[in-house]
Amino acid sequence: MVETDFWRSPLDPERVLNTHVEHWQDGASVRREEYLTVEEPLELRLGGRSLAVIMRTPGHDDELAAGFLLTENIIQQPDDLLRIHAATDDDGLPLPNVVDVLLRPELMQAAAETAFTRHFAVSASCGLCGKDSIADVLCTSEPLPTDDVRITASSLYDLPEKLHAAQAVFAHTGGLHAAGLFDTQGELRILREDVGRHNAVDKLIGNGILSSTLPYSWALLLVSGRTSFEIIQKALRARIPCIAAISAPSSLAVELADQSGITLIGFLRAHTMNVYTHPERITPV
Amino acid sequence: MVETDFWRSPLDPERVLNTHVEHWQDGASVRREEYLTVEEPLELRLGGRSLAVIMRTPGHDDELAAGFLLTENIIQQPDDLLRIHAATDDDGLPLPNVVDVLLRPELMQAAAETAFTRHFAVSASCGLCGKDSIADVLCTSEPLPTDDVRITASSLYDLPEKLHAAQAVFAHTGGLHAAGLFDTQGELRILREDVGRHNAVDKLIGNGILSSTLPYSWALLLVSGRTSFEIIQKALRARIPCIAAISAPSSLAVELADQSGITLIGFLRAHTMNVYTHPERITPV
Repeated sequence: MVETDFWRSPLDPERVLNTHVEHWQDGASVRREEYLTVEEPLELRLGGRSLAVIMRTPGHDDELAAGFLLTENIIQQPDDLLRIHAATDDDGLPLPNVVDVLLRPELMQAAAETAFTRHFAVSASCGLCGKDSIADVLCTSEPLPTDDVRITASSLYDLPEKLHAAQAVFAHTGGLHAAGLFDTQGELRILREDVGRHNAVDKLIGNGILSSTLPYSWALLLVSGRTSFEIIQKALRARIPCIAAISAPSSLAVELADQSGITLIGFLRAHTMNVYTHPERITPV
Repeated sequence: MVETDFWRSPLDPERVLNTHVEHWQDGASVRREEYLTVEEPLELRLGGRSLAVIMRTPGHDDELAAGFLLTENIIQQPDDLLRIHAATDDDGLPLPNVVDVLLRPELMQAAAETAFTRHFAVSASCGLCGKDSIADVLCTSEPLPTDDVRITASSLYDLPEKLHAAQAVFAHTGGLHAAGLFDTQGELRILREDVGRHNAVDKLIGNGILSSTLPYSWALLLVSGRTSFEIIQKALRARIPCIAAISAPSSLAVELADQSGITLIGFLRAHTMNVYTHPERITPV
């Protein structure tokens, strides 16, 4: 039995792990070094009580915690969150990969109950469909107005290259989802990367909570992969009016974007794109 | 405000939805038809009680339910599952997108409790790390023996093309994760596609439960994207000795594969590949 070896990468010791692989080409193999994106669990506690364990790439854990609380509907606004800190043991020493969160007192109990039951909500006795999921989201988040921002097609075409250029070192591993927040002039304001694509978006949104730059009504979100229902739901919670992706959206992503007043773009590649919803925000120049 | 229109695709009315998009190229746009992969919620009930809501692409829902129960550790073996059926309303009419599951009586109560608490397990007071997650998995699933199957490099190189060819019609949407189960001769035995990559793997495994072809000790799993901790965990539950992916694995995927006795391959492209763990199963010819 051959065992694999690992060591922290000098590139980025927290988020990149090195290993040896057998690299094969045709009928022959050589042993060589490769980079791996670090994936580790993060435990999120609410007043000392375990709320969720999230598999994530380390770094910006406070943002991930804050963004998760907002986009999972546990808090409604930045003010609901009083404090995020590393959990500590009985001697006051920090526990690795555990963050503890304090909300406004009147929210602590409700938040714990919501969080503990939300994945197991009893649905209507008439079955279940995408419309129910959309209605559920629109219960807690109003649709966006569509007369807010205008974005030129030409500025959109440049975004994937800007995102890619900013990834630089970390892109070595090839194992990451990237999410970038741009202003409507096409300038990259924040970039976050994670093994989980939901996490990358939660970190971006958490940054807005911690730096008081929410709501993101001025912003455009670019994601490196596909767009699902959940990505649109998260963006709506942060009031992002426009989402672009390199790949395809799902049907429910398009339906939710349509009803939320979000402009959804897919297949943004080489000076072409599909605008699935609310094309009124896109202008030629 | 422009509204987007949708209609069931003649290609595959259950799993593909058509829509109109504004397709832009440089400074001009045209309105044209596009395909979308259907994403819809599936509610899984345990003896009538709601257990989970999974966002998935419709089709093979019984497989998804069965696979989910095994890979999420709610059942331990195919025999634990007595029946899967569409849930019905008071008049006995089937509820869309809701499946109800019956387990062996002694498991029903324990399963409900496990499922309702598992995401919120209280972790050790010494913090948390990837080793804990691995230990957790190895508590319920023994590592695999590594002297079982041998696979030639040349047969591996052909797998991505075989998977892609089998996707054919459904690949129109570009919005899908594919998972294929091959035998060690490189023959494709089952293909499943889904908006969620975990779902595609759960469906493959569920097929094995329902057709009594588990354990998959004879099989190789190919996934179209990246490999995370959770994919390896699911494969181990089904006793799959070899996993290959077109893209990169995460650090924790590699660590878990290493300790589980699973051969993990990444970047399987154009007659090259990286073998991250247990290269002893791979032979040149």
